[in-house]
Amino acid sequence: MTVSTQLPPPLPEGGLRVVALGGIGEVGRNMTVFEHAGRLLIVDCGVLFPEDDQPGVDLILPDFRAIEDRLDEIDALVLTHGHEDHIGAVPFLLKLRPDLPVVGSRFTLALLAAKCKEHRQTPHLHEVREGEHRSYGPFELEFFAVNHSIPDALAVAIRTPAGLVLHTGDIKLDQLPLDGRLTDLAGFSRLGDEGVDLFLVDSTNAEVPGFVVPEREIGPVLENVIRKANQRVIVACFASHVHRVQQVLDVAVQYKRRVAFVGRSMVRNMGIASDLGFLNVPEGLFVDLDEAMRMDEDEVLFVSTGSQGEPLSALSRMARGEHRQISIREGDTVILASSLIPGNENAVFNVVNGLAKLGARVVHQGNAKVHVSGHSPAGELLFLYNAVRPSNVMPVHGEWRHLRANSALAVATGVAEDRVVIAEDGVVVDLIDGKAAISGRVVVGHVYVDGLSVGDVGESTLSDRLVLGEGGFIAINVAIDSSSGRAVTRPTVSGRGFSDDPKALDDCVSLVEMELSRTEAEGITDTHRVAQAVRRVVGRWVAEKYRRRPMIVPTVIPV
Amino acid sequence: MTVSTQLPPPLPEGGLRVVALGGIGEVGRNMTVFEHAGRLLIVDCGVLFPEDDQPGVDLILPDFRAIEDRLDEIDALVLTHGHEDHIGAVPFLLKLRPDLPVVGSRFTLALLAAKCKEHRQTPHLHEVREGEHRSYGPFELEFFAVNHSIPDALAVAIRTPAGLVLHTGDIKLDQLPLDGRLTDLAGFSRLGDEGVDLFLVDSTNAEVPGFVVPEREIGPVLENVIRKANQRVIVACFASHVHRVQQVLDVAVQYKRRVAFVGRSMVRNMGIASDLGFLNVPEGLFVDLDEAMRMDEDEVLFVSTGSQGEPLSALSRMARGEHRQISIREGDTVILASSLIPGNENAVFNVVNGLAKLGARVVHQGNAKVHVSGHSPAGELLFLYNAVRPSNVMPVHGEWRHLRANSALAVATGVAEDRVVIAEDGVVVDLIDGKAAISGRVVVGHVYVDGLSVGDVGESTLSDRLVLGEGGFIAINVAIDSSSGRAVTRPTVSGRGFSDDPKALDDCVSLVEMELSRTEAEGITDTHRVAQAVRRVVGRWVAEKYRRRPMIVPTVIPV
Repeated sequence: MTVSTQLPPPLPEGGLRVVALGGIGEVGRNMTVFEHAGRLLIVDCGVLFPEDDQPGVDLILPDFRAIEDRLDEIDALVLTHGHEDHIGAVPFLLKLRPDLPVVGSRFTLALLAAKCKEHRQTPHLHEVREGEHRSYGPFELEFFAVNHSIPDALAVAIRTPAGLVLHTGDIKLDQLPLDGRLTDLAGFSRLGDEGVDLFLVDSTNAEVPGFVVPEREIGPVLENVIRKANQRVIVACFASHVHRVQQVLDVAVQYKRRVAFVGRSMVRNMGIASDLGFLNVPEGLFVDLDEAMRMDEDEVLFVSTGSQGEPLSALSRMARGEHRQISIREGDTVILASSLIPGNENAVFNVVNGLAKLGARVVHQGNAKVHVSGHSPAGELLFLYNAVRPSNVMPVHGEWRHLRANSALAVATGVAEDRVVIAEDGVVVDLIDGKAAISGRVVVGHVYVDGLSVGDVGESTLSDRLVLGEGGFIAINVAIDSSSGRAVTRPTVSGRGFSDDPKALDDCVSLVEMELSRTEAEGITDTHRVAQAVRRVVGRWVAEKYRRRPMIVPTVIPV
Repeated sequence: MTVSTQLPPPLPEGGLRVVALGGIGEVGRNMTVFEHAGRLLIVDCGVLFPEDDQPGVDLILPDFRAIEDRLDEIDALVLTHGHEDHIGAVPFLLKLRPDLPVVGSRFTLALLAAKCKEHRQTPHLHEVREGEHRSYGPFELEFFAVNHSIPDALAVAIRTPAGLVLHTGDIKLDQLPLDGRLTDLAGFSRLGDEGVDLFLVDSTNAEVPGFVVPEREIGPVLENVIRKANQRVIVACFASHVHRVQQVLDVAVQYKRRVAFVGRSMVRNMGIASDLGFLNVPEGLFVDLDEAMRMDEDEVLFVSTGSQGEPLSALSRMARGEHRQISIREGDTVILASSLIPGNENAVFNVVNGLAKLGARVVHQGNAKVHVSGHSPAGELLFLYNAVRPSNVMPVHGEWRHLRANSALAVATGVAEDRVVIAEDGVVVDLIDGKAAISGRVVVGHVYVDGLSVGDVGESTLSDRLVLGEGGFIAINVAIDSSSGRAVTRPTVSGRGFSDDPKALDDCVSLVEMELSRTEAEGITDTHRVAQAVRRVVGRWVAEKYRRRPMIVPTVIPV
């Protein structure tokens, strides 16, 4: 499993090349590129949400550099399902290649179309469903139904002369799915009989033992909470989790509450789901928010975004008492029917605490069974491996801990250890003569979106932001005579993000003056050298006096 | 449960006043002040660790302002146990009142003494043990054995003419504790027979249903992992969790591995624990790190700090491949036998991923039962309420969600709803004629320690750091003629933490020049007004062009 840092050799004729431009070694921005006979096929094109050490970043995109010069060689983009980490970066790819055929299921493409509309794009959509076959260039595709935390998800089999590849997308094996649409394990077995040469498998829950509880077991828990409520009820969950929302609606109907959606993406997605028949809505169930506010508190139920504690979401505003319409009061019920994505705990618990302080009863994953995961844990992954019986395995969608755990499961079911390839982003895997192996690596970096621009915020900007965020900065400004190097103004020293004490930097001014006398005496007139000298003395002073490391920003103006 | 914002009235004679200066409405910096007959008693004095919205802060202290003018009236400081969130702020209190009697158990005081030594303090230590009575001023104290995730923890009963108060400290009810020292439920019942007027109860796990699994069940899990290891084994856990370490040592003995401690606090605390007989160490078990590095890999076991992913810890350095002595390789075993404190998930999983990438088998709370909590969940809290049968209850140690959950448990056992007082930090509770009620509020803010100074970093500095950390800053420098307002230099515009693109701000310079011509034309010579004008145009420009909000820092130097 050693990882090469070499550029890969040209792909031998008849071989298949696989490179992830995102999604392996991390959870998010899934994008896998397949190459055969000089043509490319892409599976998924999602975004990654930033972590603490990527401050100010809105989104992280897959790194398109490896395909930028080969855009015309792409035959299709296949989307396995409609989650942001699988479709979120599509508009950025379409900017480079607007006529790219985008292949996916009905619901997936409907969500994509809505997203592209916001970017003023009209993508070329090719709708497919489970059981169908399609060909794009040398890639013969077959689609399989997959159960996940969003409707209408697909796995895709890719046939080329190099062999048969199966990509699960995101997957789980709920045996009592709410819509009756099971993951097509029988189809996978049939592929297994044919012989799967390479199996790309969702690793997200590979560390978790056992099986996922059926989604439909959430319903009775919700029912039990909502039954007892005699005031306002607010349920927050992911805006794409149609089956979770369906269960909320069913309970609302049972207790004669009408339903109002809160939050832009919830309104939009549930509109699509209900239009396409994925959400089953009795006539007259929905009310708009304004009408809901005029109804009695026990006659309405709100379904809201904000389950991850996003500070600008409706739920966060309610928790801070800042929502324009809904003010929480003692006795209200709030249910967070959602996962707690690692890294969001503080934000989510801030919301829970805010609501609790206002007197709401808050039900969440930590105190009730109001969420189940959308990804197969270890027990289910074993079923998949035993159905598919692959020759080669590539764990995808996961951090290193997940990839390692998934590899161990593959090996436990009989896959040869040297046929399990952990290939993080950029690592090139070639399937040649039925054997998958790493052949090299292409550069895959983080592509940051911050505000309107893509890519101008990079590692050096982020590292500056981390320094500034931890310690603020101290700015020293002085004008010097450009011929003598003499300071013509008294230096000003000011800090931001450094101290609340207005006198904190007072001692520093005379220190800078002394240093300026020294540089003048030494005949230094170069503003850059003067600035360096000032930076050095101020940095040393602040480290000694405060044991802190603010950014030191000297500006020397020549006059 | 409405919370007053009024200063409390003077305490009526014969009453008891209770104010938390930290620890209620948050998890950490526990400190409760009791007042009777003009005298004060303090229970615990701990630190809180900062969250994401408190960047650059090392520690948060309780707010001493409410007692700063009454230091001489304090009769004693009682420490329930030796965790940082109960003793970490003691040196800061001792700076104000060096001769304050500090009362606690043997192990607690030994940890405190070590901490004070680093601050060059020699505190006045009063050692007590369970079953003992002591009087300080009007406060008659009785101590009870309590089981927690650190040895030698105590609960304290406080008798004054106002009534009998019981404070649990941190508590759980492990019925098979490793040291055989049970929480003294019988003692609590005896107090209950006498009549407990006010019961202060640990809320940390009040939301969690059920009971904690006995600590001793961790041992076999560790044994099962370590038995299979034939290379290096590293176990990370809290440096104060003596019983967890004891179980690691027992397994090491069983598999003939000697033990090396890694990390300053681990070495220090385990030295104390072993000297005082809290850690049972067979002769010749310990080796120092240098000697351990010369031994065969299957003959040694490392016990390390860093279980919370602290970036400078030994374990984090190993995960990054930067540890001076220990390099992880394929087949090594690392066990994180510790909790995952909310907010630390990303840091911990970064470490786990780093280790997994290097090839280690990583066992953690997420994939094996290698941790149990130190705090009573709901099932155990019911036992406590039923033993004590208090007239009044004050949930302590917890965020709002925990306090609400704990209140509900008290009410479920028969405590009258209006006798359960949720009093977050600063809320003043008076126990008068057997009834506890909120009488007002004192100001309790966050006191930040950053580097060497305490208190100079406040909310305005933090809010600047948050802005800088998200978007960096744009600095505009210009010198103007102080009489005419004319720019005598071309303005310089530079950003830090804004963009990696060196041309990102180019368009901005001419904009500033235009604005300076305008201010000059309007005869504005006041540097402050010129700076304001520059800030406005640059802020507007960057919001439009980039949709970002960096800090805008204009400096106008008069020459």
